[in-house]
Amino acid sequence: MKLTILGSSSALPTSERYPSAHLLNADERFFLIDCGEGTQMQLRKCHIRFAKINHIFISHLHGDHIFGIYGLLSTFSLMGRKTPLHLYAPENYDQILKSHLQDFDIHLDYKIIFCPLKGNDPVQILNDKYLTVTSLPLKHRIQSYGFIFREKQALRKIVKESISKYRIPISMMSSIKNGEDFITEKGIIVKNEDITTPPPEPLSYAYCSDTKYFARLSSMVKDVSVLYHEATFDKENKKLATLTGHSTTIDAANVASKAGAGALIIGHFSARYKNITALVQEAQEVFPATYPAIDGKTYDLGTLLSF
Amino acid sequence: MKLTILGSSSALPTSERYPSAHLLNADERFFLIDCGEGTQMQLRKCHIRFAKINHIFISHLHGDHIFGIYGLLSTFSLMGRKTPLHLYAPENYDQILKSHLQDFDIHLDYKIIFCPLKGNDPVQILNDKYLTVTSLPLKHRIQSYGFIFREKQALRKIVKESISKYRIPISMMSSIKNGEDFITEKGIIVKNEDITTPPPEPLSYAYCSDTKYFARLSSMVKDVSVLYHEATFDKENKKLATLTGHSTTIDAANVASKAGAGALIIGHFSARYKNITALVQEAQEVFPATYPAIDGKTYDLGTLLSF
Repeated sequence: MKLTILGSSSALPTSERYPSAHLLNADERFFLIDCGEGTQMQLRKCHIRFAKINHIFISHLHGDHIFGIYGLLSTFSLMGRKTPLHLYAPENYDQILKSHLQDFDIHLDYKIIFCPLKGNDPVQILNDKYLTVTSLPLKHRIQSYGFIFREKQALRKIVKESISKYRIPISMMSSIKNGEDFITEKGIIVKNEDITTPPPEPLSYAYCSDTKYFARLSSMVKDVSVLYHEATFDKENKKLATLTGHSTTIDAANVASKAGAGALIIGHFSARYKNITALVQEAQEVFPATYPAIDGKTYDLGTLLSF
Repeated sequence: MKLTILGSSSALPTSERYPSAHLLNADERFFLIDCGEGTQMQLRKCHIRFAKINHIFISHLHGDHIFGIYGLLSTFSLMGRKTPLHLYAPENYDQILKSHLQDFDIHLDYKIIFCPLKGNDPVQILNDKYLTVTSLPLKHRIQSYGFIFREKQALRKIVKESISKYRIPISMMSSIKNGEDFITEKGIIVKNEDITTPPPEPLSYAYCSDTKYFARLSSMVKDVSVLYHEATFDKENKKLATLTGHSTTIDAANVASKAGAGALIIGHFSARYKNITALVQEAQEVFPATYPAIDGKTYDLGTLLSF
């Protein structure tokens, strides 16, 4: 899993920080999470192929998380897209989108498959061969959802040399990859671990923005490999954070710590912070493996865990 | 008059070219013309003070000319704006805007004074002490308008030394600035040109995008100092330009030439052109004083005319 930060600002973008958008690359399948103004230009700057994006997740209907979607959907169409697009967003957004496309004379040449986010409990919203995605109810001024992406356990890999050594037929490979031993023509049992290597540990990534701190969130993201959690404010501004339905650096670090996350990325920084070094340091005091969201930066999540 | 190009792309932005937006600085009064996605970030990159923008002009309701407005209006509010904002856009846009702000929970703390653009003739939409703005009906796939900004003739400037030399009282200064001669206490007539210098020639700027070529446009922008005219395509793609309601480099140059413009800036370039040098050269063959719109570049319009 690789994560590219397309935007790390909160409501007021700066010349260095664009509004929220993340691109998660899970084994060359691209998932766009939030789509603030300018997302399509950031995607271009990061040389990300638009055609690989088949799923867009919108956390909530505040402009800094969604105003880039109209341009992007329109661009998809102008680029000749025919592949259906899966859009996960708070309920009723399909009606808002439809009326807005009409207002602006936008005719999409591909289908949008809408999945409404609703309710106050985690819901599995995607389940395919490689991963699952679950929406997580957050606590913000309006209905807001986080997302957790969990890779499924991959198959074991057969050691190439053992195929010729033990004359393993193609018909047996599937069961060996699933962990079964192999019996040779002469009836000798070859143990699975002698002819396979284990797959990498499945990774998981949780995106939690916008939200104020609440205790239940850490249990919903329990044991996540990498947690992205908004940290709009520094610890001094706890009151302001609570008032506006946002989190501080310490809130984010506490969620990561209580969840037993492997690493924490913080972002959605208020425009008041020209330099975010101090914010990262504050979070690191509670949760050392904290990293900043920086526009244009790509994190290899596996590598992040190995530090 | 200074013109900052915030976006020079057509419908598909590139990593170098943002969607349409121009900022015209007329004696430190800022006029924003079109507001494509990312305009607010471009304004920040160009260090333009948001509070100085009191007038926004929208040519037509295609996304690449307007999708930046929601973020910008919201940002104005978050920055504490109380000053009313004048918004000039095709009729009915006020209703679209209202419903969209509601959908996204945006409450503006300032008033928007809406001026609807309509009809098939030029209409003066602004007239103040310093300038006039007239909307110009264009020909595009949907209702589209250009704008011409004309500075008013400024007053003559009194030569400082002559004030003490002839003992000019403050009460006479206004009439002298307006071109009248001065009569001294002794009854001597001092000619106006001996005690004043002429003001600079008033400048004008016309913005014409999106439009296909039509003969009447050159008469509507007759004698303009600087014409911005879209040139989405090169001359080879004349058919495509006509089909999509756009112009070629040659169309733009012909309008400038027939209007007797002082200079021409072309922009709204199709994403197919990685390099725009050839486009500028094509236009220059018809109208030599052609310059390219380049994101982030500021043209001093007076200086442009002196080349």
